[in-house]
Amino acid sequence: MNTNIQNIQGWLSAQNADAALLTSTENIFYVTGFRSNPHERWLAVYIPIQGEAVLICPGMEKEDAVHSGWNGPIIGYTDIELPMELLHSYIEEHKYPNRMLAIETAHLTVDRLHILQHTFGKIETKSIEQKMHDLRIIKSKEELTHLKAAAKLADFAIEVGCAELAEGKTELDILAAIEFELKRKGITEMSFSTMVLTGKNAASPHGTPGLTKIQKGDLVLFDLGVVCHGYCSDITRTVAFGEISAEQQKIYETVLEAEQAALQLVKPGAIAGTLDQTARKIIKNAGYGEFFPHRLGHGLGLNVHEYPSITSTSDLVLQEGMTFTIEPGIYVPNVAGVRIEDDVLVTANGFETLTTFPKTLQIIK
Amino acid sequence: MNTNIQNIQGWLSAQNADAALLTSTENIFYVTGFRSNPHERWLAVYIPIQGEAVLICPGMEKEDAVHSGWNGPIIGYTDIELPMELLHSYIEEHKYPNRMLAIETAHLTVDRLHILQHTFGKIETKSIEQKMHDLRIIKSKEELTHLKAAAKLADFAIEVGCAELAEGKTELDILAAIEFELKRKGITEMSFSTMVLTGKNAASPHGTPGLTKIQKGDLVLFDLGVVCHGYCSDITRTVAFGEISAEQQKIYETVLEAEQAALQLVKPGAIAGTLDQTARKIIKNAGYGEFFPHRLGHGLGLNVHEYPSITSTSDLVLQEGMTFTIEPGIYVPNVAGVRIEDDVLVTANGFETLTTFPKTLQIIK
Repeated sequence: MNTNIQNIQGWLSAQNADAALLTSTENIFYVTGFRSNPHERWLAVYIPIQGEAVLICPGMEKEDAVHSGWNGPIIGYTDIELPMELLHSYIEEHKYPNRMLAIETAHLTVDRLHILQHTFGKIETKSIEQKMHDLRIIKSKEELTHLKAAAKLADFAIEVGCAELAEGKTELDILAAIEFELKRKGITEMSFSTMVLTGKNAASPHGTPGLTKIQKGDLVLFDLGVVCHGYCSDITRTVAFGEISAEQQKIYETVLEAEQAALQLVKPGAIAGTLDQTARKIIKNAGYGEFFPHRLGHGLGLNVHEYPSITSTSDLVLQEGMTFTIEPGIYVPNVAGVRIEDDVLVTANGFETLTTFPKTLQIIK
Repeated sequence: MNTNIQNIQGWLSAQNADAALLTSTENIFYVTGFRSNPHERWLAVYIPIQGEAVLICPGMEKEDAVHSGWNGPIIGYTDIELPMELLHSYIEEHKYPNRMLAIETAHLTVDRLHILQHTFGKIETKSIEQKMHDLRIIKSKEELTHLKAAAKLADFAIEVGCAELAEGKTELDILAAIEFELKRKGITEMSFSTMVLTGKNAASPHGTPGLTKIQKGDLVLFDLGVVCHGYCSDITRTVAFGEISAEQQKIYETVLEAEQAALQLVKPGAIAGTLDQTARKIIKNAGYGEFFPHRLGHGLGLNVHEYPSITSTSDLVLQEGMTFTIEPGIYVPNVAGVRIEDDVLVTANGFETLTTFPKTLQIIK
């Protein structure tokens, strides 16, 4: 039985709950080491307050679960069986108490809750979300190893992207080359859809790469990340392809100043909200306040976006071992879109950026 | 106001419901033409029984929504605003009745339902899932154009994969080449994580591609799909790299026979369950019954897996315009993994396979 499961069992006891039911890919990986996204099929881990946790997965994934190191019991099911009924029989058989169940309220759907209530009879539920946030927010040494490996590959991806820039190539040409090189290094999964955006397209904070050709004088924005052993990276760099205008340069320097200022505040004891406020103030004072429409950053780990959210109103106190992004941006339609994003670790005395690609304006000739 | 929204309003009226709240990327695209996956941020369309539907999205996506052709009202929100409260004020302002709300019970989470109930006060909810299934299950001409384009690119991807096969290359090398070529054709999104599996790895129905090298005598399994204008394709082909054994050949021929037999049953009026039963019987009679652990297929459209599920117990009556996959497989550990999958359209008199890459055993030298 691993320590994460023991920790959850301790919490169940303090909460007067009988069992936990984890249902998201990431939380299941966190406690079992088995990572799977079974799409519409059901995946779950049932953790009784005492005794062994049991994994419920499609029968055809049972072998993968064992290979991934899960050595607890597994309930496999076929496409014509009802997994919650199989679980319920198992619980009855083992005489596990089952009155109050802690569930992933931010993941379980209304339909699945109804099936659960229908199958299990009279149960009460409570949310296990904050507990899982609190557990996962502080990264272990092993988790940091994976996060650092993922960040290093994100740096590499930006290098590839910069080397590929050439007049006449499209955003998708560059994107294709980046992911090609990553796959050849054994990376099977990106953290999210890679963005390579140029010129006007970069001026949308959530643009989609397409067949737009790269032109001299464009700012090119890369936003990407890879998954290593389940852990995500997330980097943004904006580079100049040839000479850019004075206003584009001013926007770049403003974003960089905001990013650096927020970074310098990172240490144990600092309040997350002040990071956002500080970066936002610099951008506002430069006259671009309305063009920074999103939060400063987000937690980073098994999910590319996870707890905590780094907004101006966050009162979270930073602690050693937390990892999150800092990513201010300015998007002025038809002028420029610039975002600079690092993956940041809170250390005993300050911070470390896991992503290290240079942030001084890179001018690619 | 488009016909899908009008259709839903008619249904609301018949159901004695006041409004619908759609929250999944696919259903929102279906009624607005705006396709976005805002991750943890909230995206919704509120459809009152009478009057204009309103889109709720992150403020920074407003412009994209307008560009995508949505010309109804939009409520944008920042990262420190509460979108459900903004929506509630909008509803009050417009005096829309709001007692009974039809929601996506298979998508809305328990947390979001609680926020909804907290924000909206006393409301009742009912599920809109089956209505959306019924609407989406019959594809329009325009939808079929996109599905056919997606299937054509899936065929192309298999061609690329076969051309790339060579001794010493890894699964990921081949996969990288396939996705590289697709991106150069303008494809930004795969339907799901591409699979290129060889030898032993192919013998798992849900294996993960890695650094395993392709060897003579291997069966190589490709399972992939692309997204075109929101619509998905999903093809599987298994090819021989060099000469394969008699047993591998027998397994291949059995899967092919099962696939063809199921296909031949497809026409309006046929029962979906008989397709699965027929394919399963052929595989069982050949002695491989226990090695076909999954359903025969699944609906295909805006989701790569959607309603209906083609299982042995399905009593769904096929109708013209339905699209789904047929994909029997046999996975014998350490011997062979073979799956053959087509995207199938029910036509007025029978069927058409949208995927057309040859299914007679391809031996790549």
